[in-house]
Amino acid sequence: MTAPFDVLRVGYAELFVTDLAASKAFYEGVLGLYVTYEDDSSIHLRGFEEYLYHSLVLKKGPEAALGALAYRVRSNEEVKLATEYFKNLGCRIEVRKSGATRGIGDAVRVEDPLGFPIEFFYEADHVERFTQRYDLHGAGAITRLDHFNIMTPDVPLAQKYYEGLGFRVSEDIRDKEGTVFASWLFRKPTVHDIALTGGDGPRMHHIAFNTHEQHHILYICDRLGAFRQSDRIERGPGRHGVSNAFYLYLRDPDGHRIEIYTQDYYTGDPDNPLISWDVHDNQRRDWWGNPVVPSWYNEGSKVLDLDGKPKSLVARTETAESTVTIGADGFSYTREGDPMPEYKLGHQV
Amino acid sequence: MTAPFDVLRVGYAELFVTDLAASKAFYEGVLGLYVTYEDDSSIHLRGFEEYLYHSLVLKKGPEAALGALAYRVRSNEEVKLATEYFKNLGCRIEVRKSGATRGIGDAVRVEDPLGFPIEFFYEADHVERFTQRYDLHGAGAITRLDHFNIMTPDVPLAQKYYEGLGFRVSEDIRDKEGTVFASWLFRKPTVHDIALTGGDGPRMHHIAFNTHEQHHILYICDRLGAFRQSDRIERGPGRHGVSNAFYLYLRDPDGHRIEIYTQDYYTGDPDNPLISWDVHDNQRRDWWGNPVVPSWYNEGSKVLDLDGKPKSLVARTETAESTVTIGADGFSYTREGDPMPEYKLGHQV
Amino acid sequence: MTAPFDVLRVGYAELFVTDLAASKAFYEGVLGLYVTYEDDSSIHLRGFEEYLYHSLVLKKGPEAALGALAYRVRSNEEVKLATEYFKNLGCRIEVRKSGATRGIGDAVRVEDPLGFPIEFFYEADHVERFTQRYDLHGAGAITRLDHFNIMTPDVPLAQKYYEGLGFRVSEDIRDKEGTVFASWLFRKPTVHDIALTGGDGPRMHHIAFNTHEQHHILYICDRLGAFRQSDRIERGPGRHGVSNAFYLYLRDPDGHRIEIYTQDYYTGDPDNPLISWDVHDNQRRDWWGNPVVPSWYNEGSKVLDLDGKPKSLVARTETAESTVTIGADGFSYTREGDPMPEYKLGHQV
Amino acid sequence: MTAPFDVLRVGYAELFVTDLAASKAFYEGVLGLYVTYEDDSSIHLRGFEEYLYHSLVLKKGPEAALGALAYRVRSNEEVKLATEYFKNLGCRIEVRKSGATRGIGDAVRVEDPLGFPIEFFYEADHVERFTQRYDLHGAGAITRLDHFNIMTPDVPLAQKYYEGLGFRVSEDIRDKEGTVFASWLFRKPTVHDIALTGGDGPRMHHIAFNTHEQHHILYICDRLGAFRQSDRIERGPGRHGVSNAFYLYLRDPDGHRIEIYTQDYYTGDPDNPLISWDVHDNQRRDWWGNPVVPSWYNEGSKVLDLDGKPKSLVARTETAESTVTIGADGFSYTREGDPMPEYKLGHQV
Repeated sequence: MTAPFDVLRVGYAELFVTDLAASKAFYEGVLGLYVTYEDDSSIHLRGFEEYLYHSLVLKKGPEAALGALAYRVRSNEEVKLATEYFKNLGCRIEVRKSGATRGIGDAVRVEDPLGFPIEFFYEADHVERFTQRYDLHGAGAITRLDHFNIMTPDVPLAQKYYEGLGFRVSEDIRDKEGTVFASWLFRKPTVHDIALTGGDGPRMHHIAFNTHEQHHILYICDRLGAFRQSDRIERGPGRHGVSNAFYLYLRDPDGHRIEIYTQDYYTGDPDNPLISWDVHDNQRRDWWGNPVVPSWYNEGSKVLDLDGKPKSLVARTETAESTVTIGADGFSYTREGDPMPEYKLGHQV
Repeated sequence: MTAPFDVLRVGYAELFVTDLAASKAFYEGVLGLYVTYEDDSSIHLRGFEEYLYHSLVLKKGPEAALGALAYRVRSNEEVKLATEYFKNLGCRIEVRKSGATRGIGDAVRVEDPLGFPIEFFYEADHVERFTQRYDLHGAGAITRLDHFNIMTPDVPLAQKYYEGLGFRVSEDIRDKEGTVFASWLFRKPTVHDIALTGGDGPRMHHIAFNTHEQHHILYICDRLGAFRQSDRIERGPGRHGVSNAFYLYLRDPDGHRIEIYTQDYYTGDPDNPLISWDVHDNQRRDWWGNPVVPSWYNEGSKVLDLDGKPKSLVARTETAESTVTIGADGFSYTREGDPMPEYKLGHQV
Repeated sequence: MTAPFDVLRVGYAELFVTDLAASKAFYEGVLGLYVTYEDDSSIHLRGFEEYLYHSLVLKKGPEAALGALAYRVRSNEEVKLATEYFKNLGCRIEVRKSGATRGIGDAVRVEDPLGFPIEFFYEADHVERFTQRYDLHGAGAITRLDHFNIMTPDVPLAQKYYEGLGFRVSEDIRDKEGTVFASWLFRKPTVHDIALTGGDGPRMHHIAFNTHEQHHILYICDRLGAFRQSDRIERGPGRHGVSNAFYLYLRDPDGHRIEIYTQDYYTGDPDNPLISWDVHDNQRRDWWGNPVVPSWYNEGSKVLDLDGKPKSLVARTETAESTVTIGADGFSYTREGDPMPEYKLGHQV
Repeated sequence: MTAPFDVLRVGYAELFVTDLAASKAFYEGVLGLYVTYEDDSSIHLRGFEEYLYHSLVLKKGPEAALGALAYRVRSNEEVKLATEYFKNLGCRIEVRKSGATRGIGDAVRVEDPLGFPIEFFYEADHVERFTQRYDLHGAGAITRLDHFNIMTPDVPLAQKYYEGLGFRVSEDIRDKEGTVFASWLFRKPTVHDIALTGGDGPRMHHIAFNTHEQHHILYICDRLGAFRQSDRIERGPGRHGVSNAFYLYLRDPDGHRIEIYTQDYYTGDPDNPLISWDVHDNQRRDWWGNPVVPSWYNEGSKVLDLDGKPKSLVARTETAESTVTIGADGFSYTREGDPMPEYKLGHQV
């Protein structure tokens, strides 16, 4: 299948935050992202292997929300192809001249069929790549943006839409009746650029940054303890079942969820095998069987439309992953075929 | 204060298990301890930096229980001094000739004033120290036994008893009213050889082994996932508040709790500062604020008397740490002075 | 520029070795690669994230030599395009039916313009991907083949040839007079699939495998010490200047050079910045300034033609990197502009 | 054997440096030691697990030299016993009142029988122990001073002297004819507090600091690369044969040698086995067989007498380790019994 335009990878996220100073203390002070630029209304940040102007833009706003998720495409020509594509789909479109976002060239923003504000761009100002500026590496030693994760009510529908953009599925979570609870798709040859999490949507579930080693992630936790901000740790650190990556989920000062993620695998060949996980497999989301906390299933960031107004939510109508795996009639197993006790967290209280 | 006899450090634990093959699969197959000797009734194991015959003896028994916790003393003369000391205390005593435990020389076992079966020995057969046998290191790369942790109803009383043996306190957990919930004491210059956990006792809470690096502990978790035994992970991995060590708690096939532990600090100077933690500090047991699961507070291994009969339990009469920190009227804080919500696990369900 | 056919990435190397048992002890026993298949004449091996039949084939032969370097292309159609391409170049060609190499489908081998035996294939048998078989991971925990490195007399010529195949340059080493000493090119978005090292050629310099973390590489060294085979370590471990990867060079029992390599960076965007290193920069090949040993510059594996006969060598006519950086009139600097002493190794003897 | 007074462990080193700003940039800026105090004439530094005022004092002086190596003893009473002991030996003595060194209580300095300026103290000001101040940990994450290493012509004589102070030998390097080339002795239960390196003396070979993990040491190298100071790396990183520790040797701006060291083993039991290494074993000093550079064997810091005058050197009369292992008639083996080629460095040039 040919893609209608050539998406390279995740490019950057634009998040609205209510207190820039608090956000800076978190993203620069705790995680160790580098500030490319800041003024009274925004902060532009990047990881140490990134040479584009930013992979995260924080904008001061009246409430926490997602402004846009931006994908990088292969050329300015592809930006135009994207514009045509979404016009033909009947989506609302905003053509953005170079500089509409500081550091970014000509771009298009769309309200995509799933209700998300999505940007496509190619040109971006180059800045110093700090790969070997070990004098500046610190804290999390975050290398680069890795992926986005969004909440959407109908996962198969959303997957079909993304496959239409040329993304391929690497892994998913299903039950035997055919319900799909979540799906992971990629353009760059990693497990994902975008994950689709079944839930009321459109909401942003999280954005994820990459590090080189596991100890970098442990050190972020240690630092949060030292700052007496351990309550920013929502889930993990742990090993994912899906993707096999080592992970940590944090909540920023506005509640936006940030994942730190390392060591998934190469997916770039056309015959890369799809991995399907049973929703009742208690190692699917944490290979060590540690419980997924309910907030992780239930909470997400509001999403803005192209006027900057919050999108209203469409409820998921299919079963929620949390309800089929936690408590009441929802159960998981560690060994398939074993009786399914409630999962570890349920047991523990 | 002078010690009545000179304890060097923790020596070995003798655990009764119901299925030697299952235990071997866990201690050798998962953790990577080395088998010094095995027959139909027992397995003797050690870590790769240990040159004494064993630091763990598993004995086949009708039910899971602690047979003995053994301390190494400085010489055979000290074994005799220990014998006299406990005679004078009126404790029940068993003088054990060399070989009573395979690999161990003349020793004495006592039912100590806290109700535990404790052995003191000096002589032990030497075996190859595998420090640089990297061809044999595997899995957890466990270096040595680190400490014992026992459940006892009256922590100040137990602490006084151990101080009487020449142990010194490194850290403890208290509340402002003066209740002591737990206490850590040492002879070798680490945070502890013995930890006292307030609770119905005598019970064994856990024994702990050391590794060199954090990733060795993460790898044990990964392996348990691969063996589909992630349900052996009870708590962690995480960073302790107390001791600052990186930790993991597992349950062996009989439910005995095993900790893997690394990177606490040197305590050997006489003026080593005592660290007291507030029981309401949510980072005291996990520096990252991850919840302590109730089973960790409530469950422990039975303890045998010198006839091999299970000791009956004495209930803790002071408040339990779990009840003052979890749910109902029990609360913790991340930042002292903040309102105290229920701790993370309570929140999450 | 459009590629004449679509190369995905390095696929596998076929090495002739003189003693299969000795090779197996090294590749499986020391490095921890998995044996997919073995018989009296060959061993097929792979890393734990690889699902194709092999990434390394060892064949028993009368002398150590490179049999072929194989690239994977996107489809069988691309194999045909490759065949046409090299026919048109006038290269010698061997069309290989499925199974000509066990596990590999229809393929073509060519003697490329640089004199190397190169294969292009798409189809390959799938085998279990051991990503989460942590029970099997061991030793080096090698994930996958990363790149090839070849010795060729004229680097700019070779670079032009590879750019003609659609490879892009990520880094190179030059002097101010314009001599190019080495060049790194990629198809998959890492620093390289192929590196060109200036020297008498055609010879194979090394093949490289990937791990996730630095400690996996240190552990390989520790194991070699335990096996009393530390003399297999030729250079490193260390941090590369070029690529920023953490590395180790070993020599297998036949003298083939194997690199273990981790943590280079993403190069997949069209504007990925080229990094040019000054040949006199003493941190270019080892970021820590540790000396490159002369054998690393001077030795390489013989290369066979399509009849299995050793290719004769063409001498490099431009200056050698070793002679401009070591001893006599060759010097390096740690800080540009400083006087250039002989490099550290020269100093030390 | 009873010690004449009770040494706990290495306490601190006093080094004269010629440029305090340059030294601070190294010890604080590169290694990440914490400055307890500084003024125009001195800087006091410590590791993050240390609660005494300092473990390193840098004093401005006209030339680089060792001012004193200080051991901590168990009490002020032991300081007096030490004073008596050295008086009886006829050594030159300087009784130092509290504060003679900022932060240190009553102490005695002696010119010991080996010609070194050695201090014994107990009292010291306590400062904050930064164990869990992960917000401050950085760079090398150095935990504490680990040991001293000195060059002395007659190793058996020096060993006898230190054994007389109650130190015990953990490891040594010998040849079959009985020459002792180096010896490691300890009071705290690690491999050493003091190492004796055969050579012209008295000179200081190095002082060593501890970290928790290997990657902390690799990161120091990476940072030195980023600072374009890779020429401060003299030897390593590597794995020691002796001690099994992971190590790195640096030279500070005045040429003082500093080791970063981690993961040796517990030696605290009375029957801790002595390990003797053959001087011809090429893995004794580097388990991976990487060459010891000649400067490491030959260079050391001057040592001052109690008047602050440099001590003159006494030449080693027995064979030097470097001459029996490098070039000419000196050879090493990787596998005992194999022919002994010149060691790797000799080969390489």
